[in-house]
Amino acid sequence: MEIKPIAYIQNDFMEKFGIPKQAGLAGEAESLVVMEPEYSVAEAFRGLEQYGRIWLIWEFSEFSGKAWSPTIRPPALGGNKRIGVFATRSPHRPNSLAMSCLELSGIEKTSDGRIALRVKGADLMNGTPVYDIKPYLPYVDSWPQAKAGFSDGSNTRKLEVVFETPEMGAKAGEKLHELTEILSLDPRPSYHDDPDRVYGMSYGSMNVRFRVSDGMLTVIEIEKA
Amino acid sequence: MEIKPIAYIQNDFMEKFGIPKQAGLAGEAESLVVMEPEYSVAEAFRGLEQYGRIWLIWEFSEFSGKAWSPTIRPPALGGNKRIGVFATRSPHRPNSLAMSCLELSGIEKTSDGRIALRVKGADLMNGTPVYDIKPYLPYVDSWPQAKAGFSDGSNTRKLEVVFETPEMGAKAGEKLHELTEILSLDPRPSYHDDPDRVYGMSYGSMNVRFRVSDGMLTVIEIEKA
Repeated sequence: MEIKPIAYIQNDFMEKFGIPKQAGLAGEAESLVVMEPEYSVAEAFRGLEQYGRIWLIWEFSEFSGKAWSPTIRPPALGGNKRIGVFATRSPHRPNSLAMSCLELSGIEKTSDGRIALRVKGADLMNGTPVYDIKPYLPYVDSWPQAKAGFSDGSNTRKLEVVFETPEMGAKAGEKLHELTEILSLDPRPSYHDDPDRVYGMSYGSMNVRFRVSDGMLTVIEIEKA
Repeated sequence: MEIKPIAYIQNDFMEKFGIPKQAGLAGEAESLVVMEPEYSVAEAFRGLEQYGRIWLIWEFSEFSGKAWSPTIRPPALGGNKRIGVFATRSPHRPNSLAMSCLELSGIEKTSDGRIALRVKGADLMNGTPVYDIKPYLPYVDSWPQAKAGFSDGSNTRKLEVVFETPEMGAKAGEKLHELTEILSLDPRPSYHDDPDRVYGMSYGSMNVRFRVSDGMLTVIEIEKA
């Protein structure tokens, strides 16, 4: 089956490092789902404003065409336990499809006449191709009591985030709140725990450098590109 | 992007008529998700038994390659109000992708060595191609309070189901319970309301004929093929 992108993501996640590991974890970070010209038809979205959340079906584009792996080692399990790929949301799957449930905060028109959905909570990188948009229907999609193996969210421990100087926080400007939330999710690979190591993450036009020790993430530098 | 079926559905829904309009509504009806030989690798499912529900990403195969429609008239709204296709789960979409959240009741091996997932609540027809299987993660997928437009489930009014004679119920045998549940969801197009009309539905090897009036569905005949 041949499928064709209907939209592309525009946001501040310029690289994989730092992207939240699941949708909805960083509820403040905004993204635009910019429709391709062919699908920038206002009436195709009529009624969607009545929904609070949407599903995106998208492509792990870096993994497309690569071999699948029957088992993977989920970072959440420390990276040393093998789990079947179909028991995870890992990208190493036969078809590189992903799905994310995001908050819909608005439907807009871009300056060049495209329709764009404003969403919050994305776990998608800037430029990611999107293949479908569907409304989230709680009466069929929401199963709060479903048994959930090792992925019960309890391993998404949050870090305390501090900026070494107040000036540094000021550099983040209006992105301060969302940057803090993303950093609190701990962008490091799960099995890293070296308090002296300096990590670098880009977010929009910022390059952010930080260290982590004892559950606290300290931002030591913010450079603006 | 080219995607390839990894599995096909085996169940009693031999035709479109009678298939529940969303996943999970007919929780008794069982289906098998039979993996293609290439993906019948036991270790690829290791850990999946710890999950109570799974997502399937599948293809509205009857609609593949057909033109998309920017608006559709949802049966749930009586068939005379136009809604944008992206505000619905309608199959008339640019890419014929569907997703369903189903109860996982077991992982089995077929007599010819395929791996098959036993699931409940399918809204998929027998033979439907499946492109991905993912675990359902309540902490990212379950949003019971999400605002849900016209699709709040309130229009899935259930019918009372009666069999004209006890013999007729007996003909359904071990399928009686699930057949009754499927019929209670009202297989008729939403805008039909003709008490004299006789409808026919196939379910597995049965041909079921029924009438509906005043919220009651009466089974008048069951033929076994």
